[in-house]
Amino acid sequence: MSEFSSSYDPGVQVSADDTLCLHRNENLLVGTDWAIDAAREAIPRAAIQSYPDATSLPLREALAAHYDVKTENIFVGNGADEVLADLLAALRPRYDRFGVLDVHFKIYDLLAERMGFGVDILPGDSFASGHVTAEGKPNLSLIDSPGAIAGSSVPVEEVMSLARPEGSFLIWDNVYGEYAYHELPRPLPDNVVFVRSFSKFYGLAGLRVGYCIGEAGLIGRMLEQKDAFNVNSFGQVMAQAALKRHDDFADLRDELVEHRTMLTSELTALGFEVKPSDSVGVLATHPDHSAEWLQAELLKRHVAVRRFTDDVICDYIRITAAPKADMERFLDTVRKVIAAS
Amino acid sequence: MSEFSSSYDPGVQVSADDTLCLHRNENLLVGTDWAIDAAREAIPRAAIQSYPDATSLPLREALAAHYDVKTENIFVGNGADEVLADLLAALRPRYDRFGVLDVHFKIYDLLAERMGFGVDILPGDSFASGHVTAEGKPNLSLIDSPGAIAGSSVPVEEVMSLARPEGSFLIWDNVYGEYAYHELPRPLPDNVVFVRSFSKFYGLAGLRVGYCIGEAGLIGRMLEQKDAFNVNSFGQVMAQAALKRHDDFADLRDELVEHRTMLTSELTALGFEVKPSDSVGVLATHPDHSAEWLQAELLKRHVAVRRFTDDVICDYIRITAAPKADMERFLDTVRKVIAAS
Repeated sequence: MSEFSSSYDPGVQVSADDTLCLHRNENLLVGTDWAIDAAREAIPRAAIQSYPDATSLPLREALAAHYDVKTENIFVGNGADEVLADLLAALRPRYDRFGVLDVHFKIYDLLAERMGFGVDILPGDSFASGHVTAEGKPNLSLIDSPGAIAGSSVPVEEVMSLARPEGSFLIWDNVYGEYAYHELPRPLPDNVVFVRSFSKFYGLAGLRVGYCIGEAGLIGRMLEQKDAFNVNSFGQVMAQAALKRHDDFADLRDELVEHRTMLTSELTALGFEVKPSDSVGVLATHPDHSAEWLQAELLKRHVAVRRFTDDVICDYIRITAAPKADMERFLDTVRKVIAAS
Repeated sequence: MSEFSSSYDPGVQVSADDTLCLHRNENLLVGTDWAIDAAREAIPRAAIQSYPDATSLPLREALAAHYDVKTENIFVGNGADEVLADLLAALRPRYDRFGVLDVHFKIYDLLAERMGFGVDILPGDSFASGHVTAEGKPNLSLIDSPGAIAGSSVPVEEVMSLARPEGSFLIWDNVYGEYAYHELPRPLPDNVVFVRSFSKFYGLAGLRVGYCIGEAGLIGRMLEQKDAFNVNSFGQVMAQAALKRHDDFADLRDELVEHRTMLTSELTALGFEVKPSDSVGVLATHPDHSAEWLQAELLKRHVAVRRFTDDVICDYIRITAAPKADMERFLDTVRKVIAAS
């Protein structure tokens, strides 16, 4: 990063080309080949010289068909980040605080600061036990389940219970939901918005296409208040191409889930305690070695893993599931690190 | 557009494929060929599966070299729209109103409403005479020169004079500046920000890459407050590819300026009054025919031109300069429309 870093630090900075990068919440099983083929086809249609479709209408129509909802229930933004920002802006007149899980996506704190929301940690202990409880008072809740950091899920009925107190509103950030086999809640209550993106499951993080599904009135206000041309046209077209190949991505997801399971059992065999994960990576802690030391030793051997500074997870490293050869390279390396200590 | 239209209406909606589209502020001289070639090369590098560079650092470095300024003076956003929104958000604590030209980009009013700014029309008459005057009191001014609607420029010294009263701040929206042969003011005062984009001159409107140049402290605050990954990686890479070909685009600009001049003289010969333009299109009014009628008659013959509802320009149609064959098709059509009346 530069003399300026964004306040959100997406992880260790890797410069060497031969480093195995397992430190980001990215879908490492999606190759570039499909994207290059799709892009060749998409570029003339996407007409990169022309302004994008202002409301991403063709993509919203495709998503509406995919989820069997109405187009007016779908908003598309410049990544889930912008979707969340636009959602919070639309809800700001009604709420001045929102509740989050004890371990939650760091972007939420940045958004809260930018928009003048207070942040409350909801009762429960999503990291230790996987549970959260509603406070019984009207509240806005912003819940990442599966979690952006730990990858674990709160049970669906507990997430949905946060919308139950009258006057409440729930934003369910479900951008890793496909890895947990989550589905859109049906019927979707008017006070629940379901957020997803093309960054993870479809491996298009670079193109910034996020979306949410919610009540038509709120979605309409978001469409009116958003930046005029918020989603680039290349991203819109590539997202439609990805959606058409949904079944291929579902197969890749199944494969990733297998690798995640394999990673969990192999690390457990090496003495790690591994948190159950519903996401693309796993959190693991070792009784004899600090996370800081493990991360540094792995990086010396050209393997990047993620580490966090939050209290409850500062002893964990996070490893993103990857293609088989990369998983084996990681496991070989971690075995050497542990053996050499 | 759909059941929802964005509050910003970018012009008539054209559905027929054979319609000659001269109704949008786009660079119609840039073909798709260079972009397809550049995209083929860019996609593997752009790594569309990975998150974008959070602060668009490589592009900011390239822009810094191009303008001979420091990287810390450059902010890149999701189109000039987002750059303006982020700028206004950063300045909001200091100002609660901003001044604009009498005829100005409609997005400014939407941004003001969204962020709770009052809007003042600055003294002067940019449309009729091309002049604007500072009010002599501290103010925030947001000036599109060349203008997004009329395409005319306010003299550079008058634009810059808006920054002179102590406590003032000037945002110079110069996204059409290359067509006026404008240059970055040097030295750039600390209270002036110069906004440009890759949408017009480089013909990459679909990819949403805008930028601004300003004082490092303000740019630093904007980098901290922006959405985490605000600019898609494909746009970042394509913008760098475009910047490398700057001289080719400058040649295309010269050609467009010739076409603009030709359009002006041919329309004048047909009895139109044509406003002098520094942008990609010209505004023209005819003493015997309303703009509404002209637009409708042209559209019947599959030529789309833009019309506005603002008082001072409601009698004008706007025609975007295009490749020679398209300009001839437009002129043939307008001659038939006038002759048939």
